[in-house]
Amino acid sequence: MIQKLVEKIKKTHAPICVGLDPMLSYIPDHILKKAYGEFGETLEGAAEAVWQYNKAIVDATFDLIPAVKPQSAMYEQFGVEGLKAFQKTVDYCREKGLIVIGDVKRGDIGSTSAAYATGHLGAVKVGSKTYPAFNEDFITVNPYLGTDGVKPFIDVCKEEKKGIFILVKTSNPSSGEFQDRLIDGRPLYEWVGEMVAKWGSGHMGEDYSYVGAVVGATYPEMGKALRQIMPKSFILVPGYGAQGGKGADLKHFFHEDGLGAIVNSSRGIIAAYKQEAYSRFGGEHFADASRAAVLDMINDIKGALGHVG
Amino acid sequence: MIQKLVEKIKKTHAPICVGLDPMLSYIPDHILKKAYGEFGETLEGAAEAVWQYNKAIVDATFDLIPAVKPQSAMYEQFGVEGLKAFQKTVDYCREKGLIVIGDVKRGDIGSTSAAYATGHLGAVKVGSKTYPAFNEDFITVNPYLGTDGVKPFIDVCKEEKKGIFILVKTSNPSSGEFQDRLIDGRPLYEWVGEMVAKWGSGHMGEDYSYVGAVVGATYPEMGKALRQIMPKSFILVPGYGAQGGKGADLKHFFHEDGLGAIVNSSRGIIAAYKQEAYSRFGGEHFADASRAAVLDMINDIKGALGHVG
Repeated sequence: MIQKLVEKIKKTHAPICVGLDPMLSYIPDHILKKAYGEFGETLEGAAEAVWQYNKAIVDATFDLIPAVKPQSAMYEQFGVEGLKAFQKTVDYCREKGLIVIGDVKRGDIGSTSAAYATGHLGAVKVGSKTYPAFNEDFITVNPYLGTDGVKPFIDVCKEEKKGIFILVKTSNPSSGEFQDRLIDGRPLYEWVGEMVAKWGSGHMGEDYSYVGAVVGATYPEMGKALRQIMPKSFILVPGYGAQGGKGADLKHFFHEDGLGAIVNSSRGIIAAYKQEAYSRFGGEHFADASRAAVLDMINDIKGALGHVG
Repeated sequence: MIQKLVEKIKKTHAPICVGLDPMLSYIPDHILKKAYGEFGETLEGAAEAVWQYNKAIVDATFDLIPAVKPQSAMYEQFGVEGLKAFQKTVDYCREKGLIVIGDVKRGDIGSTSAAYATGHLGAVKVGSKTYPAFNEDFITVNPYLGTDGVKPFIDVCKEEKKGIFILVKTSNPSSGEFQDRLIDGRPLYEWVGEMVAKWGSGHMGEDYSYVGAVVGATYPEMGKALRQIMPKSFILVPGYGAQGGKGADLKHFFHEDGLGAIVNSSRGIIAAYKQEAYSRFGGEHFADASRAAVLDMINDIKGALGHVG
């Protein structure tokens, strides 16, 4: 799957990923109205609105991008109905040929991580049958529990040819509270980065390991250091756009050939029509606004990198 | 809710919690056969088996215990159908008067943690209506992202009178890889413990904060130190039984009055009938075996503590 991601980035010349993190407040009135008309102002109605919103954005952008990153929290807030919309979104994006990165940030003790890995990347045995459950291509993983909390994800990746991105340095303002603390003179995130490189070294695709890392766009200097600590790990870069990261900040997350990282934007793309720059589209044409925002993002990043692949 | 937990522990004299972490391999044949007969060897059939298994264990133990702790991974492995069983389990346990600790180990950047908090502890606004989603009483939270990843959970707890347990020192063998690393002479888990105490100090029930901590039974010396660092934080203690923790190891997780901690056992209770000590019950009477195992666990911990409350 990591090789497929590299190929798709080369083909689209777009090392970017659209974060499908729908909030009801982003969804235009005409979609809400239709969904509530059909299902009422219920969890089911909310889930229907989320699904229709996602579908329109995917339809308007799938030819430009290699991957999407749905954030599980935005679906879990609507309970079981929300997770049905998550599942529909994952399935639809895969049908459209997109790589799906489930941003679930799971991580637990070994046997429990194994169950998460099964549910999100693998297949579960029920009697004599075997079924995939959520079936993303990649997921994000929290490293706080150490190797035996991460290993079960790697095992399932190996079997299913899938991948993970491990949180190394997150994009939020207080990420430094623990992640930046110095241990033997080096910040914790570098120690986690070293482990990502180590975990990945035995689990290689062609050029990259299928054990990647998450490093926030908001910390470009740290991204530069981590790029060197984990040369074979693909870096998933959140925090572009709404969180403050810009294309010019991102050069050092990449190798010189313009590969090695994929930059996510969520709100900046999916709610583009609410920004002044794209307000000409209006709520009715929100998906066209998303397409325009994707094109602008690709140009911003290409401009910073020079070339991709 | 933290006060309700304390009251229920005093009433039952049982500072314990049953981990509802069902694996299909634990579930006796007669339950599997019935569920597969009705729904086939499908995800729906598996979810039905999980639900019937949980229900029988809850029916056989609810009068003895204050709380249960369903582990979300065990349900997510069956996708949406599994999460329906999770929801049914949460709802049923609350109906039975049990406190439900959702072991979900979530944690993300601020706006995303807010969505998780809404989905698991709060209520979501859909148009003019408001709905709870999974509606647990407490959940577990991963601290790797720092204050702004934790704060949204505390905000929802305040509003809904609920609580969280933050991972401080986990029970798994490799938890020390990052958690034990020394920062200015003190291990990371102590720094996280200090933050738990700080986050909790402004958010008190009567005797305890509603910001608690997770500390593994497998590390009793660290439990002793953390009890002192976080005097007002309730400690959720996993790792008893199947993971190796014993009652005698647990004394120092508690205050002298026998309060301040709650010990979880999962496999040791729910799959008790598979152990030699309870094999006399057989698969048909697995729930009675769970009841016997709960009584033995209560005695083991009471023996170590002297008294509770």
